Order: sequence, then C-alpha cells, then structure tokens
Amino acid sequence: MNLSIYLAGQIHDDWREQLKHKAEQKGLNINFYGPQENHSLSDDIGENVLGKQPNNLYRDDAASGINNFRTELMMQKSDAVIALFGETYKQWNTAMDAGIAIGLNKPLILIRPDSLIHPLKELSNKANVTVETTDQAIDVLAYTFQ
Amino acid sequence: MNLSIYLAGQIHDDWREQLKHKAEQKGLNINFYGPQENHSLSDDIGENVLGKQPNNLYRDDAASGINNFRTELMMQKSDAVIALFGETYKQWNTAMDAGIAIGLNKPLILIRPDSLIHPLKELSNKANVTVETTDQAIDVLAYTFQ
Amino acid sequence: MNLSIYLAGQIHDDWREQLKHKAEQKGLNINFYGPQENHSLSDDIGENVLGKQPNNLYRDDAASGINNFRTELMMQKSDAVIALFGETYKQWNTAMDAGIAIGLNKPLILIRPDSLIHPLKELSNKANVTVETTDQAIDVLAYTFQ
Amino acid sequence: MNLSIYLAGQIHDDWREQLKHKAEQKGLNINFYGPQENHSLSDDIGENVLGKQPNNLYRDDAASGINNFRTELMMQKSDAVIALFGETYKQWNTAMDAGIAIGLNKPLILIRPDSLIHPLKELSNKANVTVETTDQAIDVLAYTFQ
Amino acid sequence: MNLSIYLAGQIHDDWREQLKHKAEQKGLNINFYGPQENHSLSDDIGENVLGKQPNNLYRDDAASGINNFRTELMMQKSDAVIALFGETYKQWNTAMDAGIAIGLNKPLILIRPDSLIHPLKELSNKANVTVETTDQAIDVLAYTFQ
Amino acid sequence: MNLSIYLAGQIHDDWREQLKHKAEQKGLNINFYGPQENHSLSDDIGENVLGKQPNNLYRDDAASGINNFRTELMMQKSDAVIALFGETYKQWNTAMDAGIAIGLNKPLILIRPDSLIHPLKELSNKANVTVETTDQAIDVLAYTFQ
Amino acid sequence: MNLSIYLAGQIHDDWREQLKHKAEQKGLNINFYGPQENHSLSDDIGENVLGKQPNNLYRDDAASGINNFRTELMMQKSDAVIALFGETYKQWNTAMDAGIAIGLNKPLILIRPDSLIHPLKELSNKANVTVETTDQAIDVLAYTFQ
Amino acid sequence: MNLSIYLAGQIHDDWREQLKHKAEQKGLNINFYGPQENHSLSDDIGENVLGKQPNNLYRDDAASGINNFRTELMMQKSDAVIALFGETYKQWNTAMDAGIAIGLNKPLILIRPDSLIHPLKELSNKANVTVETTDQAIDVLAYTFQ
Repeated sequence: MNLSIYLAGQIHDDWREQLKHKAEQKGLNINFYGPQENHSLSDDIGENVLGKQPNNLYRDDAASGINNFRTELMMQKSDAVIALFGETYKQWNTAMDAGIAIGLNKPLILIRPDSLIHPLKELSNKANVTVETTDQAIDVLAYTFQ
Repeated sequence: MNLSIYLAGQIHDDWREQLKHKAEQKGLNINFYGPQENHSLSDDIGENVLGKQPNNLYRDDAASGINNFRTELMMQKSDAVIALFGETYKQWNTAMDAGIAIGLNKPLILIRPDSLIHPLKELSNKANVTVETTDQAIDVLAYTFQ
Repeated sequence: MNLSIYLAGQIHDDWREQLKHKAEQKGLNINFYGPQENHSLSDDIGENVLGKQPNNLYRDDAASGINNFRTELMMQKSDAVIALFGETYKQWNTAMDAGIAIGLNKPLILIRPDSLIHPLKELSNKANVTVETTDQAIDVLAYTFQ
Repeated sequence: MNLSIYLAGQIHDDWREQLKHKAEQKGLNINFYGPQENHSLSDDIGENVLGKQPNNLYRDDAASGINNFRTELMMQKSDAVIALFGETYKQWNTAMDAGIAIGLNKPLILIRPDSLIHPLKELSNKANVTVETTDQAIDVLAYTFQ
Repeated sequence: MNLSIYLAGQIHDDWREQLKHKAEQKGLNINFYGPQENHSLSDDIGENVLGKQPNNLYRDDAASGINNFRTELMMQKSDAVIALFGETYKQWNTAMDAGIAIGLNKPLILIRPDSLIHPLKELSNKANVTVETTDQAIDVLAYTFQ
Repeated sequence: MNLSIYLAGQIHDDWREQLKHKAEQKGLNINFYGPQENHSLSDDIGENVLGKQPNNLYRDDAASGINNFRTELMMQKSDAVIALFGETYKQWNTAMDAGIAIGLNKPLILIRPDSLIHPLKELSNKANVTVETTDQAIDVLAYTFQ
Repeated sequence: MNLSIYLAGQIHDDWREQLKHKAEQKGLNINFYGPQENHSLSDDIGENVLGKQPNNLYRDDAASGINNFRTELMMQKSDAVIALFGETYKQWNTAMDAGIAIGLNKPLILIRPDSLIHPLKELSNKANVTVETTDQAIDVLAYTFQ
Repeated sequence: MNLSIYLAGQIHDDWREQLKHKAEQKGLNINFYGPQENHSLSDDIGENVLGKQPNNLYRDDAASGINNFRTELMMQKSDAVIALFGETYKQWNTAMDAGIAIGLNKPLILIRPDSLIHPLKELSNKANVTVETTDQAIDVLAYTFQ
C-alpha cells in the first residue's frame, strides 16, 4: 500500500522534515505533500509571478491564489491529511485546510499540544484522531501499514 | 427567493443579532442559522446531557460532538455561509467551519477587519467575497435579492 | 427550522412512539421517519405483495427488497439519523442503516446502553453523538433548535 | 486488471489468511485490505499511542478513532468490499462497514451461514452477492477476472 | 410525507393514468412525473419547435433533446422511479431511464410480466423491488406510507 | 410542478423580461433567477460595497466576487439553466455559466442565432436543446409542463 | 495516455474480439473491460457458485447478482463506455448499462445500425457519439489519442 | 509528483507546444492533455467518421460530439486545467471548458492579456490564478513542484 498525505500547518519550522524522517525510519511507504515551506517565497510568489501589487492586501491575495492552487491540487491527490497546531501563530490557514479536508471526507489526524484542547475542541471532535506529537501521528500511520 | 445562511464565528457578543436585525430592516427573506450563542451552555451541553466527564478534554469533546451535530445539520440546510473574524479569540472553530463550507461548495462571505488581512489571506482568497463589516455583508446579501 | 429524522432500530417495542411523544412535548418541529413497526407485516410484506415464496430465504429477500426501498427513500429525505441499540436482538439491520447514514454523510446520533460500549465502539466513534437513553437523544435534538 | 478489496469482519480467527491464500492459488491479481487482526493490539492501540485512558469507554474510543482512520482510508482505496458474518460475536462493526460500503456505492459481497439468513436479510438484499463460504466468495472474484 | 415518483415506460397506453388513479384511491400523497404521453406530440416536438429537419435521424434527435431535457429535469426532482416493461415495443428508452435512475441512486421499482424474467434479469437484480403488475407497485408505495 | 430556472446571458437588453412575460402568458409555474441586469450597478457593486479600488483590474474583481456569489447561489437553487447568446458582446461570462451548469449536471437550453452555429458548436452539442429564439425556449419549457 | 473502456452489449458473437483487435492494430493504449462472454457460463454462474435454485427466476437472479457485481466493479474502473446494439436480442441489459454510464457521467459511444435509429433515439441523444460500426467507434477512440 | 493538466484554448497557433517545451525545460513532471490541434481535422472529424452531413449545422455537431467526447474523457483524467484566451476568436468553447472545470472543482489557471480584463472578470475571479503569459503559468506550475 502507498499513501499520499498532505501536511497542513505553519511553515515557520521544520516539523515536516522531522515527520518525514521518522516515517522513513519506520520504512513507511508514504508520499508527503505540503505547502511551500520557504516563508518569504510563500509570501512573495504572487509578486514574483505577477509583478508588484498596489498594496499588501493585493500582494497577499496574489500569493494566496497561487498557494491555494497548489494546496487544492495536492489535497485532491491525498489519501489523508495531517493538521498540526502549536501555540504560536494564528494558523487560520491550517484550520481552513483541516476544514476543507473534512468537507471532502479525507481522513484527518490532528496534532496539537494539550494547552490547546479548548480552542481546538470542535476540530478535534471532527478529526479521526487527535494526538499531541508528530511521533504519535507517525505511530498512527505505522499502525495503518501493520 | 428565500435563503438559508449559516453564521459562523465567535459566540462572545451579539454580532448575529445585529446582522439579523439589519437583514430584517432591509426586508431580506433570509433564514439565519448559527451555533448556540449562550457561551456557558455551549461549553456545558456535553455534561448537561451525558453527565460529568473525567476531565476537561472529555468535557470539551462531549460538548463538541453535540455542537458539531448541530452545525453539520444546519450547514447542510444552508445555501451559503458567512464567517466572521475579529482580533480576539483563537477562532479555529470559525476557520474550520469556513473550510468545511468551501469543501462542500457552499458560497462563502468572509467578514474580517483589515488588521487581519495577512493571517486570513488564504481563506479570503477562497471565499467568494471578503468584507470588513457586517453592514457590507448585508449589502452583498441585499444585492443578491435585487 | 423543520427537521426530518430517520429512526433506525429494532421494531419489537414502541421506543419510537415514546421518542416522538417526548419531541412533541418539547414542541420540536421534527418529522420522524422509520421502518414498518408491525413486525409480522414487516416480515410478510414480500409474500403479501409477490405471493408465496419457495422458502424462507426468498421470503425474507422479497420482504427486504420492499423494506429497503422504504428505508432508502426515507433516509434520502432525512436531515439526520438516530440509531438505537439494545441488548436483545442481532440488530445488524440497524448497524447497516447507521453505516449507510455515515456513508451518505448524514449526521448520526447513537443510542446504546453502557453495557454495549465495547461492541459498538467503532460505530460510536463515527457517530456525531453517543447517548444512553432516548431522553438524552431528545435533549440533543432540542439543543439543535435552541 | 488489479483489484483492491477490503475484508470486513471479525478478527478472532484467520479467515482472511485463508481467503487470501485461495485467491493466490487461483492467481487472482487482488490486493486485500483489512483491519488490524491482532485482537489485543486492535483494542490497545488507543492507549499505546495516547496513553492510559480514564476508563474503558475512553480506552475503546481512543482505539476506535485509530482503527476507523485505517478502515476509512483503506475502504476509499478499495474497489469492492467483502463482509463476513458468523454465528459468534456481535459484529456490529462489520455491519457498519458493510453499510458504509453501500453508502459509498462500493460493490459488496456478503458471506454468511444459512443460519443467519433472517437477521441479515436486509443487508443481504442490499449486497450485490450473498454466499455462504469464502470459497464461494473467491469463485465470484475469480469469475470477475475470467 | 410527500413523494415525487417518475414513471418510466412506453407511452402507447394509459397505464400511468390507471396507476395514478389507484394511488389516489388509496389516498397516497404522491406527485407523479412522466414523459409526454401523446405519442405523436412526443415524436413531433422537435420539428414543432425547431422546424422541419433534413431526415428522420435529425427529426428524432431534435425531439429526443427536448424529451430528454424534460426527463432529466423531472428525474432530478423525483424521490424514486418506477419502470414498466411489457412484451411489445423495444423499450430501450425505458431501460435507459431505469439505468440512469440506478446511476443516480434513485430507489427503483421494476414492473414486468413473468414472461420477461430472463431478458430483464440484470435490471431486476439492480432494482429495489420487482413486481408483475401496477397493483403490486401501488402496494409497495402504500406500504411506504404505512 | 414548480421550476426554478437560471437565465444566463448579457445584461444589455431586456430579453429576460420578455422571456418571463411569455412564460407568464402561458401560465408556466416557473421562478426565474438571473444576474443583476442594471449594467452599471453590476460593474459598480464591488466599489459600492468595498470602496474605491486601485485600478480597473481590482474594481472588476471586486464586483465579480459579488456577482459570482449571487450566480453560484442562484444556480445551486435552479433546476435548469438557459444560456442566451447574440452576435454582440464577448459573452465569456455566459459561456462560463453554461459550462458550470454542464459541470453541475443542470439541464441546459442554449439560445443562439444561426449565424453563431460554428463558434458555439461544442456548447450546443453539450446542451440538452439548442434553439434560436426565446419563443422556442419557452415552447420547450411549456412542453415540460404539458 | 491509457484508457479503460467498458464494452456493453450482447454476448452472442465475438464483436468485442474484433473491436479489440482493431484497437491493437492501430496501436491504441486501451484496456477493455466487458461481461463474461461465454453465454452459458454467464447464465449458469449463479447456480455454479450457489447451487441449484428453485426455478428460473431465482436462477437468473443468482447469476445476475454476480454478473452485476462484475459490471459495477469494471464500470467504476472505466474512463468511458461503448454500448453496441443490433437488431437481434432484447438488449435491455445493454440499455441499462448505457443508462448507468450516463448517470455516472462516463463518456459514452453508442454503436447501432441505422435501422434502429427510432427506438434508440433518446439514448443516442444522450450519448456523446453515435456511430453505426465498430470501425467508426475505433476511429473515435483513435482520434482521442491523436 | 506527476500532474495531468488539460490545456483549453484556441487551436490556431502552437501555444501548447511552447508551453510544453517550457515545462520540459524546467523538468516538470507533467502530462499535458489538449484538443486536436489540427484545425481542419478538428472540424472535419465528424464527417470523416460519420460521412457527409446535410449541412454545416450537422457537420459541426457531428464533429463536436467527437471532440467533446475527447475533452470530457481527458478533463476527467486531469488534476487541473489551464485556459488561455487571446484577443482573436470567439473562444466560447474555451470559456465553456473553463466553466466545466469550475463545475467539476478542477483547479484552474487562466491566461489572458490585460486588454481582456473586463470581459473575463467573472471567469478570472473564479479561477485559482490569473496570469498574462504562458511563462507565468509555467512559473505557477513550477512552484507547485518546488
């Protein structure tokens, strides 16, 4: 069995690299998709492609059209989605991605620290599994192959 | 034409009441759905129905199952969704609801102040319309009836 | 708001009548659908319509075609499904109905006594809400109207 | 042609191994999916990943979230489903899986002994084919390749 | 409960009128849809609207576009479909309508004489219920309201 | 039977008014939806609601978000779509609306003069019916009620 | 590009073999699916697997369950469907298969002699392409690869 | 990751060849689908396969049935669609293809010169990304692989 999994979450640290590495160590046959992790490239891509925009609103929207194109395409090709939340950042894009996965009936694993139980309670209830660490997420994936 | 619209957003103030009042003043034939706005009832409903839970995690999950049942049912009966964001509160439930609307192809209006342009850029790009005030949202709805 | 709800479960006692009565007492605007509750009619309907069948296998299949026609039609017209389990009866038809509701994305409330926690654990996890009594199910429905 | 088939049913004996072996003997190009067959692992996986739970209800729900994640993912990747019933065990999970397959329009083969004709009549009527042994199920699969 | 049912079948006699009359007699709250029953109008409608066509092929296609527009629209508004077959006429349009109903997951009742068991065996197997007379079809509908 | 029909096409003349009038004269029970027909309001609505935009590109996009919200909502509530083409105007919005109707499986009537046979050949082939005048479109609708 | 195509039609002659041969000669990268072409095996398969049935009705239904399982599975894996009609045989199974393809939005090519224009007019209008010979069907497929 | 992308647009110049070449130069793992680019073959294919037609209307419709069969099949196999517009040609087929992509939820990139901002405003708003050149479209695709 080969799985394709979309990793939704902030792009401010290398949590995806760590998660992929753990999956590799366990020999899991998984293809991981995710957003552009270079944060300035992710914010700049609109203007990089389309040229300078009038102000930040349009700069952000131009980048978002391209980032959303990527996410939509990858999520359609995914068997499941993992959404990671942390205590920093607003992460509304992450929550939106998780919601879209739910709307599309993609199985969903939520990773969040126990300090965020209350504000993520509805999303946690709708996800298939809620864990606190990427290690636990990997354990769930490994179990799927066992 | 009669519309059913789900109002997603925080339940800490009476923004829905104000929005409904404005819609009524303009004579719009709209039926508004929304979550339970009594905040303690919304948090307590799990234990109210199912009894005391072992700790906050389960207390929150019990309530969320019931709140999500309500939201799912209402969103399925809705023609469109309005999602309101403000500078307070984590609002991950709101972002999840907006994402589910997108996944279900429900037309979506996003209301957010301009201070939140950057963290809501992806959601704004995916929504049909982004406005800053409930008055503007009402204008869009009124235009739909004109 | 008006809801249509399909009541899945055994047809050996009047639990549906009691549930409908409670809903009425609370003034809930709900239209309840359910299977034919006259147990012999439910088993006989195949032969009643199509004539004597060669043996019990065909007798049961003839009845089931007609009962399934009814259930399919009613479940498509329903906003949500309630599935009730008890300690008697095999209830595989009930579990199938609950599974179909899940496959069709119909919000689902599971009613089961705590003695059946273990054998219904997967179904309970997939349902939106799990309660132990019809009173609790009514409370969840009432909350949906509040 | 290559088929992916989900094998739903109890995990108390090795019926899947036998079925896979027969398929192999007939040279059928089938990839079989199924639940975790190690019964204690299947029950323990929740606590294995998430830690000790307050009581059996939560222990079972934690495991079920993970088991359902696996089943959901595998069933989406399957072309068809086989559901096996026997006289022992409550098998509500099996009936739910069969119902979900029906809701998702996955072709379904039901395997059940003739002693269970009556309690499985509705499910049998909705399945594409009902047989009594895994040999007969294999015959149907072989015919699909002929 | 109100049902909308599409009556698929030949338009050479008044079987629909008889069926509707029986439904009325039993006080069934059903709205029946069906094709244009005036056979020449059904064949002429293309040329009536679009003018004389080069030959019979185009004459038939012009009429069929309009008849199919009507059937598609009505079938989408229907809760279920009844397809009637008799020993006369090719009835490929009827079989196509029944197949479309199956593809769209509309519950289906097949009415056919026992002389047509063999050529309709696959359709009969896919239909929810197979009966031999309109009276039996009415019995099934009446049972749905009981 | 009551039908809801979306009228897609240019907003530079009163063809919709004429079509509605004809439908009324024939006593057809149809509810017609359509875009905002006041051309300047349709172009201005973005800036009316959201304020002056940096240039025409953003002015047009702001208006389009609101116009598309309206069209999406109305088309979802429609049983069928009529798309009218004429020799003036680029009408790419009309062709897009017709394409969306096709993608959503909404029955479609195309109205176009015979001078536009060649550039509309693919759309005409995909539509259920192609006619040249609104009178003919009305005839098709009237036939649907006969 | 690789295509999977389901060949619906009578199983009384080797038209599929001829069509596949022509496709091969043209070097088309197509995988063809189809029913069991050994006519007695197709009729006997029910009793072969399930044992002697009470009479022809049940004999046919037992076979049809298995044949429909095969067709359903193969059609879901197909990119398009070809339905062939001839002047012999009732071919209601073929028309049903074509209707299911339409309901499932599978592109459809109809092959029929010009003597059958009138009874196949509705099906022809709904199909993407109507041709008279398998050579022409192959030409359409070849064009798809060009 | 491998992507399949349908290139919708006029067939009067070699823009697709240029786009594919650029994708190749950037080493993008993309499989491009598109219409038959030989313009006379595209217009003649109906008569080539089906023989001389009575007049241009039928000649065009015969070709369109075959061209639409090809487009439908390819679009279903595509992960995303690119639609190119220029100042020449009516391009209603292109706009219809873009609309179908939207109705089918296929991510869409629109390429159009800034002289066409106004007539393509609604389509541009519904597309994921709007660019002015094929180079920019390639940049978006390359970003999807980064």
